[in-house]
Amino acid sequence: MVRITETILRDAHQSLAATRMRTADMVPIIEKLDQVGFYSLEAWGGATFDTCIRYLNEDPWERLRIIKKAAKTTPIQMLLRGQNLVGYRHYSDDVVEKFVTLASKNGVDIFRVFDAVNDIRNMEASIKAARKCGARVQGTICYTLSPVHSNDKFVEMAKELAALDCDSICIKDMAGLIMPEPAADLVSRLKKEVGLPVDLHCHCTNGIAPMSYYAAAGSGVDILDTAMSPFGFGTSQPATESIVGALQGTPYDTGLDLKLLAEIAEYFWKVKEKYGAIIDPILERIDVNVLVYQIPGGMLSNLVSQLKQQNKMELYDAVLKEVPVVRRELGYPPLVTPTSQIVGTQAVLNVVMGERYKVVPKEVKDYVKGFYGRSPAPVDPEIQKKVIGDEQPITVRPADLLKPEMPGVIAAVNGLGLKNVKDEDYITYALYPPVAEKFLKGEIKPEALEPKAAPAKKSKLGP
Amino acid sequence: MVRITETILRDAHQSLAATRMRTADMVPIIEKLDQVGFYSLEAWGGATFDTCIRYLNEDPWERLRIIKKAAKTTPIQMLLRGQNLVGYRHYSDDVVEKFVTLASKNGVDIFRVFDAVNDIRNMEASIKAARKCGARVQGTICYTLSPVHSNDKFVEMAKELAALDCDSICIKDMAGLIMPEPAADLVSRLKKEVGLPVDLHCHCTNGIAPMSYYAAAGSGVDILDTAMSPFGFGTSQPATESIVGALQGTPYDTGLDLKLLAEIAEYFWKVKEKYGAIIDPILERIDVNVLVYQIPGGMLSNLVSQLKQQNKMELYDAVLKEVPVVRRELGYPPLVTPTSQIVGTQAVLNVVMGERYKVVPKEVKDYVKGFYGRSPAPVDPEIQKKVIGDEQPITVRPADLLKPEMPGVIAAVNGLGLKNVKDEDYITYALYPPVAEKFLKGEIKPEALEPKAAPAKKSKLGP
Ligand SMILES: [Co+2]
Ligand SMILES: [Co+2]
Repeated sequence: MVRITETILRDAHQSLAATRMRTADMVPIIEKLDQVGFYSLEAWGGATFDTCIRYLNEDPWERLRIIKKAAKTTPIQMLLRGQNLVGYRHYSDDVVEKFVTLASKNGVDIFRVFDAVNDIRNMEASIKAARKCGARVQGTICYTLSPVHSNDKFVEMAKELAALDCDSICIKDMAGLIMPEPAADLVSRLKKEVGLPVDLHCHCTNGIAPMSYYAAAGSGVDILDTAMSPFGFGTSQPATESIVGALQGTPYDTGLDLKLLAEIAEYFWKVKEKYGAIIDPILERIDVNVLVYQIPGGMLSNLVSQLKQQNKMELYDAVLKEVPVVRRELGYPPLVTPTSQIVGTQAVLNVVMGERYKVVPKEVKDYVKGFYGRSPAPVDPEIQKKVIGDEQPITVRPADLLKPEMPGVIAAVNGLGLKNVKDEDYITYALYPPVAEKFLKGEIKPEALEPKAAPAKKSKLGP
Repeated sequence: MVRITETILRDAHQSLAATRMRTADMVPIIEKLDQVGFYSLEAWGGATFDTCIRYLNEDPWERLRIIKKAAKTTPIQMLLRGQNLVGYRHYSDDVVEKFVTLASKNGVDIFRVFDAVNDIRNMEASIKAARKCGARVQGTICYTLSPVHSNDKFVEMAKELAALDCDSICIKDMAGLIMPEPAADLVSRLKKEVGLPVDLHCHCTNGIAPMSYYAAAGSGVDILDTAMSPFGFGTSQPATESIVGALQGTPYDTGLDLKLLAEIAEYFWKVKEKYGAIIDPILERIDVNVLVYQIPGGMLSNLVSQLKQQNKMELYDAVLKEVPVVRRELGYPPLVTPTSQIVGTQAVLNVVMGERYKVVPKEVKDYVKGFYGRSPAPVDPEIQKKVIGDEQPITVRPADLLKPEMPGVIAAVNGLGLKNVKDEDYITYALYPPVAEKFLKGEIKPEALEPKAAPAKKSKLGP
């Protein structure tokens, strides 16, 4: 039997609708979602926290409590970026522990913890904090392809995650790179050699994920991540209904009721209509560029927009060729936030400036200095020299260099003159001080949901 | 090795863009399509013939010659509705023979022949005519589910098709009903028990087709039908690039070049933009209703529009329940044009009139009389009595009752006073006399391609 993690409340709208789904659009359907019998509802974390306070004027903690209260039986799951929590930099261990404790207290049952460069040291503090709360932890492998990545290496990493007391393993294929046969092989090896339940999380960017899911089911995968069809496929997960239907009557039957799913889908078609203006049709497309250039779709459109800003689109082919070179020189990081930006920006600079590494942004310097963790392979020594000269990269866990941040946060929040400050508010502030200050002061104007405009749609349909 | 039949020139735009793709939008890319190394290009037949003369003022024969001339090496394939050819009724054998002979002469290399109720007698004349021309023939099974349909029965039918000298077998899953395991089973049984190459043709309506393709590849399928991504998925075929990518490096590798496919996709994204106004987003959706009610998506929207016209939407649930009952009573026909209309209309009438079979349309009477061929199971005797009283249904092949039609056609066309009448024009007239007369006289105004209108899009997005 395969279990299903439903992502409609988090990854699905993060992938297709800029993470903009409002709590009010979730509430009316949670009871029904809860009846389905999902393994879990992924409903928090990732970019939802940031979006809530920055654009929606919603308290993410309140959202979590509302969802948890309505979903009486289904475990609530969140995506946690290891030491980055739900932010974009490493936080100190005291912030990590406090965040995880409050997330657990407010309703998170399962923490899916990952690190962009698969450096387990960046995951340790949050895994430990979650286990301390008695929560379940899914240790996560960021899947990527390179000469230094292999199913052997991923199995090794999973063993280390198991040793950290994770109780399941997630293969996170954020770029849609995994093919059915390697997926089946990795799943069966993890099952055999690690012995923990295995979850496969794919994005449908190139249209291959349903096949990888099917192959993984045949290899004994325990959990598949899917999204209800209105927010499924494209850069999101394969549609829940399709996977449930395909496995019906097989030994991998999910046991879920398609009729109930059809009712839920009907609800979300109406929700999707409201968000029409912010759903870029490009995200709903099949994108073969991942297969051709091994560059994730989102990164590619980023490169295009950087080149267009500089009026240098004629350099596009050169940049496409430069990306894999920079990635190799930087030790083959998986291409995912923030490493996709680090590699992409440097590749554009190398080509546009006409001299490689003539200009190097701070993020690339920090990466080479080891502040993002250990790269999968060592950084090319010549490039290291060019980027940081004789400075020596750190070899310790990056967060070891961070002093406790909570005392400063508490002082800062207390100095804002707010009434009724809750524990959670301190953490919100710790994560994104400037935005959090505005949010806590009630100064954030919630973004309006504009009806879909016709010309925008048309211009975006082109390649 | 799996070979690919590319459907972008026929089924893909018939499924997603109302069959409206113009020859002018095909021509610039055919040379590149020809370089890919497809098993065949499905480029003619189905609804394209009708659409050409009715809406586009294009001569379908001329389109065929143009495509054939540009595709120097790839075989051109057409979809032929058995005795219905590319029309909606049975034609006499002399029309069938002449049509097939001219199709072959003008460029069709492979004829895919099917019949809506899987009555092989309705396929014989066209299969024989095609073989007589030395063309290849793909004998086709319309896949459906019912107590009288089974893989056993489909294998039996395939043997009969092989006995008629078909040189390959197609499993045509027009409604997206086939699941991965039954697909794999049927393919391997056909391979073993019939011994001909097997082609799997699915529509992606419920998002399951990619998984069925993957399972079929593992069972030795020879050919998979796919559509370039801009016109892939939804009610069309799985995307070519996705299937090619997923099978790369496996024993089923298609050997096709993804980079070349990416260039072709880029071309068709631009074409798709031109057709934006006629692409209903509903067709690009995952539709679970096929799974829940075993009713194909297209048929369902038809039921809704019939009920809405009569202001009886409150009867929708009753109609959904009535459809399988009527289908059973009529001997479980596959739900495909024209049987989906026959079953659907009768179900609506039964519910709306408040008395079953009180009103029976002519098409249902003809069906019960046997004019569409032999139904998969006998029609329920009580229903037969209600519908046609004591009249006895025919048991012969329906076309046996048709007199040769060509002499009348020739006389009629010669009486139109046209200049330079070609052999092909007579057949065009034989197929659809009233429209053909206007077309041959040059009175058809080609439909304009309107830019996409915003409100239409919005209203269609709802469920
Ligand atoms: Co994801
Ligand atoms: Co078709």
